[in-house]
Amino acid sequence: MTDRKHFGSDNHAGTHPRVLAALADANAGDTDSYGADPWTARLQERFAEVFGPDAHGFPVFNGTAANVLSLAALLRPYEAVICAETAHINVDECAAPERFTSSKLLPVPTPDGKLTPELIATRMDGIGDQHHVQPRVISLAQVTELGTCYRPEEVAAIVAYAREHDLLVHMDGARIANALAHLGCPPRELTDGVDMLSFGATKNGAMNADAVVVLRPGLAGTFPFIRKQGMQLASKMRFMSAQLLALFDDDLWLANARHANAMARRLADGLAAMPSVRLAHPVESNGVFAAVAPEHAEKLHENWSFHDWSTTASETVVRWMTAFDTSEADVDAFLADIRSVCG
Amino acid sequence: MTDRKHFGSDNHAGTHPRVLAALADANAGDTDSYGADPWTARLQERFAEVFGPDAHGFPVFNGTAANVLSLAALLRPYEAVICAETAHINVDECAAPERFTSSKLLPVPTPDGKLTPELIATRMDGIGDQHHVQPRVISLAQVTELGTCYRPEEVAAIVAYAREHDLLVHMDGARIANALAHLGCPPRELTDGVDMLSFGATKNGAMNADAVVVLRPGLAGTFPFIRKQGMQLASKMRFMSAQLLALFDDDLWLANARHANAMARRLADGLAAMPSVRLAHPVESNGVFAAVAPEHAEKLHENWSFHDWSTTASETVVRWMTAFDTSEADVDAFLADIRSVCG
Amino acid sequence: MTDRKHFGSDNHAGTHPRVLAALADANAGDTDSYGADPWTARLQERFAEVFGPDAHGFPVFNGTAANVLSLAALLRPYEAVICAETAHINVDECAAPERFTSSKLLPVPTPDGKLTPELIATRMDGIGDQHHVQPRVISLAQVTELGTCYRPEEVAAIVAYAREHDLLVHMDGARIANALAHLGCPPRELTDGVDMLSFGATKNGAMNADAVVVLRPGLAGTFPFIRKQGMQLASKMRFMSAQLLALFDDDLWLANARHANAMARRLADGLAAMPSVRLAHPVESNGVFAAVAPEHAEKLHENWSFHDWSTTASETVVRWMTAFDTSEADVDAFLADIRSVCG
Amino acid sequence: MTDRKHFGSDNHAGTHPRVLAALADANAGDTDSYGADPWTARLQERFAEVFGPDAHGFPVFNGTAANVLSLAALLRPYEAVICAETAHINVDECAAPERFTSSKLLPVPTPDGKLTPELIATRMDGIGDQHHVQPRVISLAQVTELGTCYRPEEVAAIVAYAREHDLLVHMDGARIANALAHLGCPPRELTDGVDMLSFGATKNGAMNADAVVVLRPGLAGTFPFIRKQGMQLASKMRFMSAQLLALFDDDLWLANARHANAMARRLADGLAAMPSVRLAHPVESNGVFAAVAPEHAEKLHENWSFHDWSTTASETVVRWMTAFDTSEADVDAFLADIRSVCG
Repeated sequence: MTDRKHFGSDNHAGTHPRVLAALADANAGDTDSYGADPWTARLQERFAEVFGPDAHGFPVFNGTAANVLSLAALLRPYEAVICAETAHINVDECAAPERFTSSKLLPVPTPDGKLTPELIATRMDGIGDQHHVQPRVISLAQVTELGTCYRPEEVAAIVAYAREHDLLVHMDGARIANALAHLGCPPRELTDGVDMLSFGATKNGAMNADAVVVLRPGLAGTFPFIRKQGMQLASKMRFMSAQLLALFDDDLWLANARHANAMARRLADGLAAMPSVRLAHPVESNGVFAAVAPEHAEKLHENWSFHDWSTTASETVVRWMTAFDTSEADVDAFLADIRSVCG
Repeated sequence: MTDRKHFGSDNHAGTHPRVLAALADANAGDTDSYGADPWTARLQERFAEVFGPDAHGFPVFNGTAANVLSLAALLRPYEAVICAETAHINVDECAAPERFTSSKLLPVPTPDGKLTPELIATRMDGIGDQHHVQPRVISLAQVTELGTCYRPEEVAAIVAYAREHDLLVHMDGARIANALAHLGCPPRELTDGVDMLSFGATKNGAMNADAVVVLRPGLAGTFPFIRKQGMQLASKMRFMSAQLLALFDDDLWLANARHANAMARRLADGLAAMPSVRLAHPVESNGVFAAVAPEHAEKLHENWSFHDWSTTASETVVRWMTAFDTSEADVDAFLADIRSVCG
Repeated sequence: MTDRKHFGSDNHAGTHPRVLAALADANAGDTDSYGADPWTARLQERFAEVFGPDAHGFPVFNGTAANVLSLAALLRPYEAVICAETAHINVDECAAPERFTSSKLLPVPTPDGKLTPELIATRMDGIGDQHHVQPRVISLAQVTELGTCYRPEEVAAIVAYAREHDLLVHMDGARIANALAHLGCPPRELTDGVDMLSFGATKNGAMNADAVVVLRPGLAGTFPFIRKQGMQLASKMRFMSAQLLALFDDDLWLANARHANAMARRLADGLAAMPSVRLAHPVESNGVFAAVAPEHAEKLHENWSFHDWSTTASETVVRWMTAFDTSEADVDAFLADIRSVCG
Repeated sequence: MTDRKHFGSDNHAGTHPRVLAALADANAGDTDSYGADPWTARLQERFAEVFGPDAHGFPVFNGTAANVLSLAALLRPYEAVICAETAHINVDECAAPERFTSSKLLPVPTPDGKLTPELIATRMDGIGDQHHVQPRVISLAQVTELGTCYRPEEVAAIVAYAREHDLLVHMDGARIANALAHLGCPPRELTDGVDMLSFGATKNGAMNADAVVVLRPGLAGTFPFIRKQGMQLASKMRFMSAQLLALFDDDLWLANARHANAMARRLADGLAAMPSVRLAHPVESNGVFAAVAPEHAEKLHENWSFHDWSTTASETVVRWMTAFDTSEADVDAFLADIRSVCG
């Protein structure tokens, strides 16, 4: 590995300087622990401003926890979660959801990582039958694992389906800022009718802070117990809240995401001129999924950090991620190398 | 609440300046995530130096997780943990151990928070009987919840008992640095024969990093899966490891603990002259448990942050904690107020 | 072991002839499975007659399941169960409650196995504190593990305390028939205000059928999913329901219990004349707890099956249980042997 | 519903008369509980005779428990089970496996309900990657949910694959007798290399008894704790063991299965002459899966009990099950009605 910019994941990036500065500022004397501090109080105000007066935000340490604790707040163990087969919760959480919620995931194959009411309906069987888990939560990721975004009307259609069928909606927003930056809509438009939101910050410039945002009235009162039992209660909470506050200040979260998205767009635009590189999915956030010849992927790995997403004999789909700290020069250097390898 | 020093908990303190500086230093460009970074590699070396070549350290976000994941690595669900009735895992973890391990705790009343082979033996019943959980792990806290320490020979006696009875040993070292500072012995002497160690750092100057130290050979290989399923895998791991490295550098962890202990000792010495204040437990770390008149405790709460530990009609036992950032002046100001209140 | 009557447990007895006959009667052709059969429909009517129109009874295979599933229906994982330290759920279930409910038990030492509002209050701490499990269910056993019974006004006092403190009440009625036989009150008087009842039948003449009786309105609709996920849904349910129906017919359940109680009373009366035998607990059901010299207990084991309950150097407390099939001659033969051993 | 023979499930049948007689025979006086009785001792001998000297059989109450407890004995929570997408454990257990094992199922679409090494290999990804559950157990059903059987060499190929890849093998033998009857091979040939067997009896003439057969050396010693914590320990165990003994006596289990299979064959043969009825799967046990016009299925439901398995606009696949008590006359009457409905 070299000192070059990574395109492996947005979590290969460091901490945004303003987040780091906020941590230093928060390091001022003693304060009450476990959330009874002024930073956390201010953070709660910000979540309410951004996501509406019913929103209650609870810092947690990572996205796994944000997802699992969100689901735990909505589920009884015999209830189930309908999600895309490619969803992070289904593929990349080492059965953390199953272990903590005791529930089952009902994955649905999708063409592009996105659920639709029609796809959801395929898992709506066995309702009322004691032998079957009872579908209760729809979990949709915004951005999806394939870098695609739900448009507001697509979210609304899923929410409407949920209301009709007595289901609840969880949004895995590990990259919600990237979705908002791509879609250009206000946050509340995207979370209208959503019951629980995993609010991602670590991939967007924070150090180690994400949040569960309880949007459904009536659940915020007991959520602290779920967080504590889930081993996610920070004692020096001010340092979690300060990270999130720094991202909200002057909408740094959206600025970071817009920049990362623009770098992915720049990368995709540069690939457009290369006949041997094909985009596997539309570029709607900070990820570029490209299909290249397996030997080209292998060659590129020599100098660059990135993940192979899937492989066949004739083609490797690679995932190239940008972050808040990716520069135009980084992208151009990478493009130059891709061009020289792939021709 | 005022701007005064808190005596409520060592987690009311902030982050040690050298830890904060280390975080800034670690914020240099991109690096691999999830522990495949140079900081985490160096950290592993430090754990091996401190706790022996078999030691493998895994950063986690807090002490709850360090304890619960340590136990999970040692237990099958039908096995049980013998611990003091006052133990943090029994009293203050909101059933996180039960939820994640599916096991049972077998609490033992103790005079001073410390287990002994004799006390452990009182819970060694039902061995081999299918109706009973099978005692498998002894969990001892060093420092205990009551501020007391096990001397090395006391740990050794428990380890010997464990070996004789096919039990494993977990040490909750949320304040292990304070114990080492009090006892003046090398770390390995205190953990000899211990199978899993919860290594506390947050209460000792870190921001939000503790660790599980796997001491038992054969368990380190699978521990990453337990940590991930336990929602404790940090993506930007370098910022966890950097905190712990900063504490190990020049033995800052021991210096911090020695200082906190000295401040508790100064506080206790000051109390010795006050006939209306009685020490409820020996002062062997950074906590002072003092019995005062209930109205005195109430009066002191007006200006100072601290916890009432237990209350009867005639007496309140208060817990006064010091930290790495407590100054002699802080203690003296507190003592002056105590003197004026308690007479 | 000999062919003599056992005094080891009421589950050493066989199946009552009328239960066996009912099983043969139920073996008539095909019927729908999983509870959609006429026997189960009739059973539901009987439960409503006995325990009130809100009562819904669900057969399960054993008392462990009746207790654990009852608790699971009442609890969220961060909530806790206050119970006697000697309670079966705390001592003899191999952590089945912890594994299935993910919750914690909060045991209370009691003099006689019975909770009181005062004893319950000792565990009512940490309410609203996120670090603590939240007391939610009081579990009382009727008959207790020590053979004692709650009088109706004692149950009522606990129910009143529960209502005042937003707690729910579970009654472990593994031997509820023996309690009713002892107290002579109607079933509804004893379960007034109880939310979930474990209805014991196996110890009272059934072969392998107990039941969860949902008394709290609103919980019966989802209980089938809890039973199924708890691995307690019988496919050939008619053979479970038929057992319970046979016990309800002509109040066989109460007749069996009255007989067993009378045999315990006869045994206790016989012991009264022996100065070297002391009753350790009042005899209020079908169990006699007697304190004898350890060597006498040992000698009696040569010819009789029973359990030593607790042992000190000078005294062994033994448990002698009677059952529906214990005869006066059995008791008298046992008494004769006790007299010859203990003098 | 009428008094006619059901074709809905083999659990609509009653108890075989010889099983019922065995229960009456076992009802002879007192005996030790929880498995320390002569019936259970004899049963253990029979399991060893049938499945080999390493086999240890443990009665449980139903097939759900046999499957879930078998898996629990083989898995750590971060490990996973590869199974057919149609497998009972994946579809019909209301997430009982997830709740009790805390593990994840990795379902594989199959053409006929049967796994192959090639199909298993599709889920063997993420080995050693901490973000992924680790495949550890292959669970294959013999008979499958679609009525098909693995031939001995097919089982052997899966066992060989398992050994190569450090996997363990669980066989869901809810209908293993039907498989043996179909294949005509000795039991041990079919379970060679299998680690845990769910031994089905209830669907084959028992009342409410199945068993876990531990075949893997080293696991039998701790299995009783798993069974107890899984709420599956029968107190009056003799009545569980007596059912299984009756089925082993004179190979009643195989005779029952041969008869049920023959009735399914007779039914399938009768259908062969009907052009409007198509077999959806080969008939290799006691189930017939037939595709008929939806209106024909609906018409047949008026007089007969059976399940629709899947439905499209043009076709309904129905499942017709036979049992030990199905007579030739039952089949012929059903065939006559099918002929008159479907033409």
